[in-house]
Amino acid sequence: MTNTPEGTTPTPIVLLENEDEKVLPIYIGASEAFSIQTALEEMSYPRPLTHDLLVSMLEGLNTKIEKVIIDDLDDGVFFARIIVTRNGDEFEFDARPSDSLALVVRTKSPVFVSKKVMEQASVDRDAYKTGA
Amino acid sequence: MTNTPEGTTPTPIVLLENEDEKVLPIYIGASEAFSIQTALEEMSYPRPLTHDLLVSMLEGLNTKIEKVIIDDLDDGVFFARIIVTRNGDEFEFDARPSDSLALVVRTKSPVFVSKKVMEQASVDRDAYKTGA
Repeated sequence: MTNTPEGTTPTPIVLLENEDEKVLPIYIGASEAFSIQTALEEMSYPRPLTHDLLVSMLEGLNTKIEKVIIDDLDDGVFFARIIVTRNGDEFEFDARPSDSLALVVRTKSPVFVSKKVMEQASVDRDAYKTGA
Repeated sequence: MTNTPEGTTPTPIVLLENEDEKVLPIYIGASEAFSIQTALEEMSYPRPLTHDLLVSMLEGLNTKIEKVIIDDLDDGVFFARIIVTRNGDEFEFDARPSDSLALVVRTKSPVFVSKKVMEQASVDRDAYKTGA
């Protein structure tokens, strides 16, 4: 969560960091943030959230999320693709990064961000922390 | 949306009606309500919502949602199952009614509610409308 003035609703943000200490901030919706947090903290939830359902469907259908690729940015909107495989066949789905990340935190699949997107939208980790 | 006192957040509700003019009210979350409304009104949305992603994955994986069954109610919580088929094989997934309904409004799949659940939780349509 970002810091906001008292009384306003904070906008959830995901920070993806690479090995060069570059950070890619992605603003996401509240329900996707809740879903990501629930999975990261391994909180038990009485009923399946939407992303839990999606993962259980993929697993039940013998399909595996191989990776997520974030490789486009248009007018502040990030574009992701989810690559899944089944019996050696590969399928690709257009998705929002928020949904993609809510899935990979459950399946422990890797996330790749294109150089182009990192150059356009990433910031130094230290700069991000200090707000410089 | 239900009527609520000014200043409070209304709780979204889905009303499922059967041929006997019985109505089953199901309270759902805000994001699932938005997703259902978006699909019902055939609003175009620039990026796929979570349920759009789920439907595109099922379709891409050659899988069809045959039906949704709402057949249990425990301490005010409804339980649903989503039945899908692929190449003649049938698969069943535990789900919340809200997710199930957000999917079937996109795929036009039928929804079945058990007699037991209708007896426990449905009300007359007219009674519901007048608040009697």
